[in-house]
Parts: sequence; structure tokens; C-alpha cells
Amino acid sequence: MSVNQQSATPEAAVDALVVFTPSGRRGRFPVGTPVLEAARALGVDIDSVCGGRGLCGRCQVDLCEGNFTKHGVESRADHLTDKSDTESTWEKRRGALREGRRLSCSTQLLGDVLIDVPSASQVHRQIVRKRAEVLDIALDPIVRLYVVDVQEPDMHLPASDLRRLKEALAYEWNLSDLGNDIRVVQQLQAALRQGNWQVTVAVYDDQRIIGVWPGFQSQVYGMAVDVGSTTIAAHLCNLQTGEVVASAGRMNPQIRYGEDLMSRVSYIMMHPGGDEAMTRSVRDALNELTVELAEEAGVNVDAILEATFVGNPIMQSLVFGINPVELGGAPFALATDEAIDGLWATEMDLVIHPNARVYGLPCIAGHVGADTAGMILSETPYLGEELMLLVDVGTNAEIVLGNRHRLLACSSPTGPAFEGAQISGGQRAATGAIERVRIDPLTLEPRYSVIGCDLWSNQPGFAEEAVGVTGICGSGIIEVVAEMFLAGIINQDGVIQGELAERSERIIADGRTFSYVLHQDDQRTIAITQTDIRAIQLAKAALYAGIRLLMEQFGTQHVDRIRIGGAFGVRILMSSTPWCWD
Amino acid sequence: MSVNQQSATPEAAVDALVVFTPSGRRGRFPVGTPVLEAARALGVDIDSVCGGRGLCGRCQVDLCEGNFTKHGVESRADHLTDKSDTESTWEKRRGALREGRRLSCSTQLLGDVLIDVPSASQVHRQIVRKRAEVLDIALDPIVRLYVVDVQEPDMHLPASDLRRLKEALAYEWNLSDLGNDIRVVQQLQAALRQGNWQVTVAVYDDQRIIGVWPGFQSQVYGMAVDVGSTTIAAHLCNLQTGEVVASAGRMNPQIRYGEDLMSRVSYIMMHPGGDEAMTRSVRDALNELTVELAEEAGVNVDAILEATFVGNPIMQSLVFGINPVELGGAPFALATDEAIDGLWATEMDLVIHPNARVYGLPCIAGHVGADTAGMILSETPYLGEELMLLVDVGTNAEIVLGNRHRLLACSSPTGPAFEGAQISGGQRAATGAIERVRIDPLTLEPRYSVIGCDLWSNQPGFAEEAVGVTGICGSGIIEVVAEMFLAGIINQDGVIQGELAERSERIIADGRTFSYVLHQDDQRTIAITQTDIRAIQLAKAALYAGIRLLMEQFGTQHVDRIRIGGAFGVRILMSSTPWCWD
Repeated sequence: MSVNQQSATPEAAVDALVVFTPSGRRGRFPVGTPVLEAARALGVDIDSVCGGRGLCGRCQVDLCEGNFTKHGVESRADHLTDKSDTESTWEKRRGALREGRRLSCSTQLLGDVLIDVPSASQVHRQIVRKRAEVLDIALDPIVRLYVVDVQEPDMHLPASDLRRLKEALAYEWNLSDLGNDIRVVQQLQAALRQGNWQVTVAVYDDQRIIGVWPGFQSQVYGMAVDVGSTTIAAHLCNLQTGEVVASAGRMNPQIRYGEDLMSRVSYIMMHPGGDEAMTRSVRDALNELTVELAEEAGVNVDAILEATFVGNPIMQSLVFGINPVELGGAPFALATDEAIDGLWATEMDLVIHPNARVYGLPCIAGHVGADTAGMILSETPYLGEELMLLVDVGTNAEIVLGNRHRLLACSSPTGPAFEGAQISGGQRAATGAIERVRIDPLTLEPRYSVIGCDLWSNQPGFAEEAVGVTGICGSGIIEVVAEMFLAGIINQDGVIQGELAERSERIIADGRTFSYVLHQDDQRTIAITQTDIRAIQLAKAALYAGIRLLMEQFGTQHVDRIRIGGAFGVRILMSSTPWCWD
Repeated sequence: MSVNQQSATPEAAVDALVVFTPSGRRGRFPVGTPVLEAARALGVDIDSVCGGRGLCGRCQVDLCEGNFTKHGVESRADHLTDKSDTESTWEKRRGALREGRRLSCSTQLLGDVLIDVPSASQVHRQIVRKRAEVLDIALDPIVRLYVVDVQEPDMHLPASDLRRLKEALAYEWNLSDLGNDIRVVQQLQAALRQGNWQVTVAVYDDQRIIGVWPGFQSQVYGMAVDVGSTTIAAHLCNLQTGEVVASAGRMNPQIRYGEDLMSRVSYIMMHPGGDEAMTRSVRDALNELTVELAEEAGVNVDAILEATFVGNPIMQSLVFGINPVELGGAPFALATDEAIDGLWATEMDLVIHPNARVYGLPCIAGHVGADTAGMILSETPYLGEELMLLVDVGTNAEIVLGNRHRLLACSSPTGPAFEGAQISGGQRAATGAIERVRIDPLTLEPRYSVIGCDLWSNQPGFAEEAVGVTGICGSGIIEVVAEMFLAGIINQDGVIQGELAERSERIIADGRTFSYVLHQDDQRTIAITQTDIRAIQLAKAALYAGIRLLMEQFGTQHVDRIRIGGAFGVRILMSSTPWCWD
């Protein structure tokens, strides 16, 4: 505001032109205007947590030197003030800024300049994750940190510490009508005095203060958790940078109450209070996982201010303390199909910050859960014309078919075979698991590769480089079954051809059926048994039936694109061309 | 809506005229319209929890028979339908309706009628409380109950139980966009099935479902608590009727950490964690008090859905888990001067309904607390021109002076003398406490009355009727000091005149000072000592100083009305004429 007023004064003659890239926004400002202030006035997206105190280092910009005819600006280093004390102090603490880079809060305009805002300094920057399977996402965290200096109390003005904090947030950050958690009040006075009247607050959805720390606090984290029937996967994400700083997984301990969903519901029906026991057991596992993630990332669990959960309807119910028995029989009524929003972590006994907010994605129907909602959000089939088929393979496969006109979803009980469970040599997709297999149709000899090693088993150095063959994962099983079929080891019905035992020692009798030995060393034998083949057939049939049903319902014989979720989806080899049955 | 449409049809000729009193609202409705529906269409205030199911009996109305020329209506009993099955069923369960009284939901219009809505059937009726000291209040509870019939689930429609509940609340009660507590989801499915798809829900502020019960639930309660330094007083209120169903008080157990506020703050300063111990101790006492109230009223603690707390800033801080050390020294900064709103009872470990909402009135300044805010709300000095002086006498006296133009407040440390504490024969205002005293200036003989007996001590039958004299309460102390001065037993400085021992055996030596024996029996001697006089002088001086300061600050020598709060205010004898100093 003041900037515009100033430029209307007679001193406008000494205004400096500033052009920001990549936005292309430009404007004239009085000499002496800080670069960050000019950016703000022009609506240029530059991050800042400390509000121009030179503490956070998020507002870094690059001066581009030269005569930029296109922009009509001759940009020179001496058109900015020299390195300030604030910048020197920051560099001492955090390391030297690279050539031409400045803290925009502490640098003032002396003449015309072209300033580039690197993507790391943008609030709404695009995050490109490292792992191949993850999509680009736009960063827009629901919890943000703000540093404020709060006026000291005055005996003659009865305004409370909380009121003065809120006044400072309104004045410095334009955050008005904020609510607050009671624990913020409980911690505020000590934090203000310990921070010498400077505190960092965490604000949820620009509406409510949920955390307070003395002085400057730079990082806040969020957790995303997929609670599956068999496995739980969790990621810890820096809410300021969007970086996934740790990932971990573990078995769902509820498995001791039943391998599949229906046996867990049966357990609850037969054991009153069984739902509470299962809720406790999964929350305990979530807490262990949280501690593991925090340790891996070197983060205090107290810095985790958000947690988001997905799961199938029964898992989601148990995580949130809802008895799932109604999901065990027709008409499969959900307790809620709304998102569970803004719950305090304490209400779920989670070990993260007590005021952290917990969010549960909505379940869609009795057997189509929040995990499916998550998959749809992530793959956005609802945005385009393209007919997409989404499959999240787990103990139950969630399947979604559609485009922006219509979406159909279903769930299909594939069993855990695709996850490598209930397969004789099966394991999760982890280092040492066989994931690629080729079988020579003449000799019936296999070659394979394992996760964690780029060599095939028949290449020189494999024995040294591979840290050991420990089992076979879901995508490996798909491949080995396909290769066994192509090599004629199994027929179209999936029966292992016992007469081949004459041609190869790898075909061995196993009671009344036969197995195919894929790998053997002093440690273990990994063989594909007839039972394994049957489990894969069942799983594949369930998946196929689900997809066919959706296609029939949709009235199509054709899909434009198939996306397969999870670790399974990354590792499975797929045709990238449009897909048709028959 | 439908009523209006119908009355516009050709059948309007058979419309019936209905006039409601006391509102005077009138309208024409088609024959067959239920009386409750007609009332709703006219905006007549008739209560109903069950929504016209004939369950709650709150919508009772009286038919007034006769020719009411003033209203232009001839009202006859046969202008209403005969007693319905619903009414007969209700009478079997709840007792016969008195002559002429009907359930308006189950009675239909056949012709012109005059209907009176008794005050007990009005939602916003005025409540006249039984006890003299309590003001009339308008009933407008923040928690209301609603009965709804919810559609059963259908396998072909994936809407959840919660969604169908909300649809029913929108349809039947016009409550839309409701939020809900997670525990409502946790309890909903069992409640719906147990209630055969009928449930009662509690809705907070028409915004959020906070409770659910199978079938019909008729009552919900709120609690109001004043947490004083020395005593805690609590009332249990039926939120449907406004009736105070139980009241109880007890000592504040924090007294073991220090008698007055400052000694408690000192304790916390010297004992880290002392604030938490005090918070636990006061919350334990609150829970004991809650159980006592609920038992007295024959109510389940789970039916208490709201609790409101006031206290001075230090008590209020400790109730809400806020360390009060900053209030122990200049600049006496409050942590918050906002109301504490919508906190879950579980967050304070209260034994009431887990989703009950807790409300704390706002503190005003470092030493002027939520109890003062409550007194201002109750006495409403801010509404009129009259200059009011409000005094809440306790261990600290809260004093407010002002009118609708300006309000000033302060707190004055009177000590506990006015509460009967730290007085040799002192006690709380309870049965057996001396509350009225007269002293004969000639004989120096006293007569007195005690709480619980209408006779004076010199009247025949006193010994039999009074259950025993146990001590002297605050208002009794004021009277005895005044009478001692009028009788010349103390001089203007408050010194008990030892030479009077020659004239009366009631003046006795007590070390180097003297006492006045007010009462003596086999059980006890109640005497007013010189120390007692000094305590009263200190208390009175503190109160006087506080009031004088406010009057000076306000620039007035005159007040129009004095209101003294609490039990003390009821029992003290005061001039009802406007009051001036000097």
C-alpha cells in the first residue's frame, strides 16, 4: 500500500524499475524499497517464514546482470544495496549464498534490476519427487509457520498475551479472526518469554493457531499413511519444502485377528470389544511407524503437525475407532462417507504434536474405501476425457474406471498373492526379492534379477553384487507365471506339467503335484508350487472380474490408459499403448 | 409452505381460523391441518423435541372454548379432532392431560378455534427461578435435542448412515450443513439399529451433532460452576426447561497449597509442576461435585452436555490448565482475555458426556476475572442509563461500576472474612449459622437468628426449632460488628471497650485485648474477638478502597443502584435507596 502511495509523490523521478522472472511482473518503486516488499506489492510469489527478519532464508532471489532489451531493463549489481549485516549473519549461520544470490528481504533497490525467483523460493512451487512412481504435486500445505514479534504486556493496557499475539499476526501477516487451540494458550506465556517476545506459530488453514514455539522454528512436517489389510505404508513430508524426508512400512498387526477383512469382522462379531483391541493394535503400530520415520529423518515427533490416513472401509473404520461390523454383511452400510476432518491427534492417542490435525479421506461405499479416494485424487481421472482404469493392488484390489463424465469404482478380493504373501517363496518388494524372470523355452533354465542389483543372475558379478536372494515379490510372481506359461511349464489351465521332469531337474514332484525350482543356494530354495499358481489364478481372476464388471457397467470395451498404484505398479512391466480386451 | 399453497386452492372455503394466544398470531388453514403445523406456519413459539411424533409431550396447548368477539372467533371443542390414539398412548405413559389440553402435533383443525400456548410449551419462555437472588432469564440453550427417523441403508445406494441421518435432520428439522464429532460416528450405527432407525441427537449451536442416543431421549443438562479461591459453587440446569435441578458447593481443595491467590502463585513459583497439581486437584473436586449434583437430581452424568466455568483469573487459569505465574507479578499479563469456547469435556478430564462442550467466560484483566464477566452478564449494567455498582464478595471482591456508556472494574483483596473464614467462630452460610444479630445498648445482651429457623434466639421455641447454633456467617459478622458499634462495645477505631466488662459478663479479657461472647452452650462458645474485628476492618477497608477508586475514576460521588452478588448478597440487609458517600 505504502509503496504505491510513495510512487505517486514527487520523488517518483528516482523510482527504480524491477522486473521479476519467471512471472514477468514488473513495477516501479522508490529507491530504498526492499526487493521482497516490491515482490509482494506486485503479487510475485516469494516464500518467507520469518517475515523479512533475515532468519529463514526462504526469500532468496538471483540478480540477473545485463541489458535485457526484451524487458527494457539494464540490470546491474550496483543497482542493489551491498550485502547487508543481516545477510552476513545468515551466511555465518547457514553457509555462503552463491554468487548473485541475495536475501530479498534484506536487499534494497538502488536502480533498475531483473530479479529471478528460483523455484525453491516460491511458495506454490511444483515439487518433483525423486521416486519414479510419484506424481508432481503443487505444494499448498494446510499448516504454515509464521514468525512474529509480540508487543510486551503493559500493566495499563489489560490486553492478554494471546490478544497481542493475534494483533501481531494480523498486522505482520494479515491473518485475522484466528481461533486457537487451548494448548496454545497453555504454552504461550512461557514461549513468549523464552523467545524474548518472538515466537513462531503454526496456523492451520489460515484459521486457527495450533502450535507455538519460542523464537524461530523452521520446519513442520506432515505424515501420509496408507493402512492396508496386510501392510501399512507411511511417508513423512516436510510441509515447507514438500520433500518426502522418510518412508517406512510394516505389517498390520491386526493380522493376528484374521488374514483377510472378513475374518477380522467375524472376530469382532464373536469377541465383544474386539474392535477396540484392533483399533489399539493398529494405533500402536502407527505410533511405532511414526517414531521410526521421525528417527530416520532426524525430526522430533512434536514437529509433525498433520497426519492423513487412507485405508479400505474396514481398516479406515478401525483406525478411527468405528466398529466395522456393519461392513461385514449386506447392505454393507458405512458409518460415514464424509472425510474425517480436523480431529486432534490426542483423540487418537497418536504420538505426534498433541494439536496435530488428523485427516481421513472419505470412504466411497461399503467396500470402496478412502484408499480408492486417494488414488482418484492422485490420478485425477475426473479431469480429462481420456477413459482411465486405475488399479490399486493389495489384499483387495481397488478398481476405478472413468473420466470427467462418470467414474465407477469397485473392490475385488484378490487375496494377498500379489503382495507376495501366501506364496511359498513370497515376500514384500524389498532388496533381495526376485522381480524379473526369464525362462529359456528349450532348456527351461531361468535367469532373474533381484531388487537392489542391476545384473541378471546369469551375468558375471551377480553373485558378488546381489546381496543375496531372499524371495520373490508380487511383480516377480506375475513374471515367473507368464514365463512358465510361455515355456510350456504350465498349460492353459495352470497345471505344472509333471512329464517335463524328464527334461529338467527344475521340475520336481511335490506330493501329487509338481513345482518349478527358480533358485537354490545354501540358504534357501525358491520354488513355484502348484498352490502358488492357483493363488495367482484366483487373484488374477478376481481382478479380471472386477475390471470386466466395471467395463460392462460403463458400456465400454476399451480403455485409454491404465494406472497401477503402489510399489507393485512401479515394478510391473506394462504395455503403454491403449488397452483392449480380446 | 404446503399450508400456504393449500389455502390458495378452491378448498380455501373450508379453511378454519385459528388464533393463538398470548402471541395473538392468527391465520386460516385447511381443515385437517395439525395445530402444531399451523403454529409453525404462523411463527408461533411452540416447543417440540420429537417433531410431532407424540413422544415428547412438549407441544401441549389449551383449547379456549367460547365466543371471543375480540378475536372474531367462536372456539368450540368439536372444532378440533377427538383425542387421538397418539394422545391416549402418551397419557398411558406420562399421565392424563388436564381438561382442554391437547398435544398440538396430534390434534387437527376442524373449525375455528382459539388456542392458548402455556408458557411451559414455549421454547423461549421466561424462567422464574425459585430462589430469591436469581434473576429471570430467557431460555435459549446452545444444546438442543432432536428426534429423527433415519432411512434404512440400501445396498444399491452407498450413502452412509451419517449421511442419511443428516438428510433426515435437514428434512425434518431444517438443520443443514451440520458437522459432527467423531464419537457420534463411532456410536451412530449401534444407536440406529438399537432404536430401530429412530435416534435422538444433540445438536450444538445448530451447527454440530455432539450426541446420539437410540430412540427417544428427553432430557439434556448443563452445568454452571463458579470456582472461587475458597469455595466452588455449582448448579445443574435442565436445558429443556431451564429448571435448576440441583445445586452444591464445596471447598476448593487448592486451599492446601495456600489460602489466598498470591500464596498459591508463590507455591507454583517454588514448586515446578505445582500448577499441574493444582489443576488436577480442582478438576478432581469438580468431578466429585458433578457426581454429587447428578445424584441429587437423579440424572446420569452422561446427560450433561454443557459446562460453563467462571473464576478469578488465577482460578480460571488453573481450571483450564494455564500456568498462572504471570498473574503473580507486574505487569500481570493474562494468557488470554478471550472466552474459552467449545472445548471438549475429555480435554479437561471431566466426567460428563465426553462430547460435552466446555465454555469459560473471558477474564477482563490480570486481576479481574471471568466471575466479574459473569456478574456483568447477569446484572446487565451495560444496558441502562442507571449508574450501577456491582460487588461480588469473596476472598477477593470483584467490583464493577458503570452504565451503558462506560464500565469500570477492579478487584480488591478483602481476604476471606466476609465468607466467614479466618473469623474465630466463622463458617459458610449454611443451616445453623448466625445471620441476624441485635444487641440491647443498655444490657449489652444479644439476640440473633440462625439460618434454617425463623425465630429469634429470645423467642419461645427457638431452642427446639433451631437445630443448633454452629457458627457465624459473613452477613452475621457484618451485623454483629454494626450492632457492637451502635451499642458502644467498640469505639470508632474498632477497639473492644474492656471497661464494659464491669457492666456485662459478655465482655471478657482475651490476653491484652477483649472479646464479646455472642453465644454459649455445651457445644461451643461463639465470641467476637479483637482479631475478628480487625479482619472485618481490613476487608471492609479493601472493599471501600476499591469502590472509592472506581468512583473517583468514573468521576462520580453517586450511584443509582448497588447489587451484591452471591449468597452473601441475599442475606445482607441493605438500603434500597440510592446511595451516596458522606
